[in-house]
Amino acid sequence: MDRTFPALLARMQELKDLNGVIGLATWDQETYLPAKASDARAHQLSTLQGLYHERLVDPRLGEVLAWAASRSELDADQRAMVRVLTHERDRAVRVPQALVKALAEAQSRALNAWRQARKEKRFALFQPALARLLQLRREQADAYGHDGERYDALLEGYEPGMRVSRLTPVLTALRDALIPMVAAIGSAPRKVADLPEGRRFDAEAQWRFSLKLLEATGFDLEAGRQDRSIHPFTGGTHPRDVRLTTRIDEANPLNALFSTIHEAGHGLYEQGFDEAHYRTPLAASPSMGLHESQSRLWENVVGRSRAFWEHFFPALGESFPEALSGVGLDTFLGAVNRVSPSLIRTEADEVTYNLHIVLRYELELLLIHDELPLEDVPAAWNERMRRYLGVTPPDDVLGVLQDIHWSWGEFGYFPTYALGNLYSASLYRAAERAIPELTGHIRRGELLPLRDWLRDNIHREGYRVPAEELIRKVTGQGLTDADFLSYLKGKYGALYGVSL
Amino acid sequence: MDRTFPALLARMQELKDLNGVIGLATWDQETYLPAKASDARAHQLSTLQGLYHERLVDPRLGEVLAWAASRSELDADQRAMVRVLTHERDRAVRVPQALVKALAEAQSRALNAWRQARKEKRFALFQPALARLLQLRREQADAYGHDGERYDALLEGYEPGMRVSRLTPVLTALRDALIPMVAAIGSAPRKVADLPEGRRFDAEAQWRFSLKLLEATGFDLEAGRQDRSIHPFTGGTHPRDVRLTTRIDEANPLNALFSTIHEAGHGLYEQGFDEAHYRTPLAASPSMGLHESQSRLWENVVGRSRAFWEHFFPALGESFPEALSGVGLDTFLGAVNRVSPSLIRTEADEVTYNLHIVLRYELELLLIHDELPLEDVPAAWNERMRRYLGVTPPDDVLGVLQDIHWSWGEFGYFPTYALGNLYSASLYRAAERAIPELTGHIRRGELLPLRDWLRDNIHREGYRVPAEELIRKVTGQGLTDADFLSYLKGKYGALYGVSL
Repeated sequence: MDRTFPALLARMQELKDLNGVIGLATWDQETYLPAKASDARAHQLSTLQGLYHERLVDPRLGEVLAWAASRSELDADQRAMVRVLTHERDRAVRVPQALVKALAEAQSRALNAWRQARKEKRFALFQPALARLLQLRREQADAYGHDGERYDALLEGYEPGMRVSRLTPVLTALRDALIPMVAAIGSAPRKVADLPEGRRFDAEAQWRFSLKLLEATGFDLEAGRQDRSIHPFTGGTHPRDVRLTTRIDEANPLNALFSTIHEAGHGLYEQGFDEAHYRTPLAASPSMGLHESQSRLWENVVGRSRAFWEHFFPALGESFPEALSGVGLDTFLGAVNRVSPSLIRTEADEVTYNLHIVLRYELELLLIHDELPLEDVPAAWNERMRRYLGVTPPDDVLGVLQDIHWSWGEFGYFPTYALGNLYSASLYRAAERAIPELTGHIRRGELLPLRDWLRDNIHREGYRVPAEELIRKVTGQGLTDADFLSYLKGKYGALYGVSL
Repeated sequence: MDRTFPALLARMQELKDLNGVIGLATWDQETYLPAKASDARAHQLSTLQGLYHERLVDPRLGEVLAWAASRSELDADQRAMVRVLTHERDRAVRVPQALVKALAEAQSRALNAWRQARKEKRFALFQPALARLLQLRREQADAYGHDGERYDALLEGYEPGMRVSRLTPVLTALRDALIPMVAAIGSAPRKVADLPEGRRFDAEAQWRFSLKLLEATGFDLEAGRQDRSIHPFTGGTHPRDVRLTTRIDEANPLNALFSTIHEAGHGLYEQGFDEAHYRTPLAASPSMGLHESQSRLWENVVGRSRAFWEHFFPALGESFPEALSGVGLDTFLGAVNRVSPSLIRTEADEVTYNLHIVLRYELELLLIHDELPLEDVPAAWNERMRRYLGVTPPDDVLGVLQDIHWSWGEFGYFPTYALGNLYSASLYRAAERAIPELTGHIRRGELLPLRDWLRDNIHREGYRVPAEELIRKVTGQGLTDADFLSYLKGKYGALYGVSL
């Protein structure tokens, strides 16, 4: 392999292409793969991931990256490409093959155990597999290396640059502000209603409306698509091939509406990468939290706002004349913003959601530090649910077994959801300062000014700089809960008629 | 790489998985890829194909294959796997990288030139690119090696084991039998009509009917799927993930009907490979001609037969009550079996089709032998069209420029279509001997006895033995035009009321 930037770029492109094809095979698995082909697809994905890993850890790539790191003639983008790929490669190289294999096996076992435990509603059936995964992930954290905080080494895989020492104070303060806010909303004299029960929202009409929403956000349907899947996600193979999925439930149109807007936020980000970065490590987000900030900004800050529905609600009413008969804008806005402490994270509203995350983050720290006996995890979970949200899971499926993440061994992932929420509020505030009359635009259904501001300030940057640094550059400050809390106070204070 | 069969098998599986993923990316390109992603997909496919080639020509694989070829402890299937992969690898190794690259570039240029030539209806615009491709393919044939007949080396890529010395006498005799047969049908006193013009066949109803047909053939829709594409094809990633496409034209239901049955024939073959051969070189057809025999058997011998429509025509009538009003079974059977010399191969009927192929085969031999000046190709084409079919192309688009194959540099491909037709008739005759009351089954819509016979005798064999050897084993004789001609004489003699 030549010690030239073009030779290095060719390897970067090859890795990115392979990654794109892995994206295709994964998307297909969730959308169009025939039922009997799941084993075949698992083999194909495993082969692709093996090839990706093999090319990534290739010593010749390491040599050329080391050479390139010292070349002063490279421009800023080229240096960033070298830095990002070196970071990824270093982490991959540090984990011994035996540990990689043991982790894959333990994940597969844990997934089965988790499913069985859910079936029997008994955490104890999941416990041995979880213990094994935790042990291996601690080993992996040590292999990655850290400054005494193992969790940092895992967090780095999702949120490069973020540290427990930075995150814990912010999430703890957030928790302590949210608990009384949830209580205050719960005891507010004004109540908001759900949509009327028993109405049927035609699936085809939901699909057509979701495509209208996508187009309104500026998502380019010639550089992407939308399909259906059981769990909505954003995937694809390239910034010009971004694939969203949504889920349609005829009894409840909010699933499709908000999963479409949420995934559109992710999708706009992917479509917005700089063309000069295509097929390089820079055509990527620097963190999962920043990626989530885009989906949350569109789904919640924009998509659940009065201004947004002032424009879109009349069209929604025309799409579902019977199902929405008698439902006015105020009722609808109440229904999509109703605050109600509940057991399941994925169904939580904006106010309570982060408490679900803080709970998981706190337990993950204890688990990785080996400071919580595994048999005590369900009790610790339930005790925190009571303390933070005032509800108690009646069984483990509605409690500690509800998320799939731990059965994949994903420790360090959950906090990125909270980061996404906090970043989304800070970014929206910066957008309000930068775009004259932003609310007026949204009220007229003009979403492109916001999309273009995000594109110029966030999307086009790709992976040039770490997430928090980019947030600081764009908003004037780094990670903070202030913008998010102030957003909640304003919005929910008005909705519930209380001072928060 | 260990010198053990399991180590070799792992490499075979890796190659097969990669091939499956190439199949996915290709299928997706023709079905769901967003318009703006075509460049991205070309890069991804090129990267995958490059990796496949790199792994195939890996000298360590060559060493283990050579070692395995001499191991007496391997069973018959394992020896066949070694033989098939060695054959593929030897051919890949023999072509220098510079030639591979030159061919890829020449193909890309030729494709553009062909499109431009079609636009201006002038073969001369395609001629220089074709000359370059022919030169490179001759070089490639010499690199592969041959016994003095260059065309054999190219034919080997599509129809392993077949030779010009074997093929030419059969196709020449076929030609000489077909020319008078076409003439006799043309002057028969009885005429058959087309479907009435101007009727509209609802696209959704066509789609539903095509799925019914697929199910009736025994195509497993849980181990495959059907989608739409501009040009119907069979692709997929694995015998349990076989993907057919069809094309729906509301003005003409015959497109979807017969492309669905045609692709079902290919698809049943792929689904029928022996599970013990999955992810090995044996889960494949030994030749394109044999593959085509399966599609032609279902599309023509079964799908255009009276027995088949005696069962399915009533259901077709119910699906299109208005569009088929006044159309009886006899009219319909006439319309789907009408013989009419025409200019375009892909629209040709069963009787004239092979004359289109013989014409191309004869010209390809002259071109590869460098015995026909390129500027004379259109005239040679038109002269043969007159002689074989009695029609003259009014321009090159309706003549020499009609097929895409030569612009891909595919010389040696066309004859496999004729082989498919000849093999299909011989196989069906063998099936009639083996299955009591086969016609009665078909008349009752029972297609599984035929599918299962094909599965046991052809599909499960995979790539164990060469195509003609398998045909000999199953039918008692090798390549012959006798069964096909006798099939045509019986069917079309009765339809047109002439002695053929």
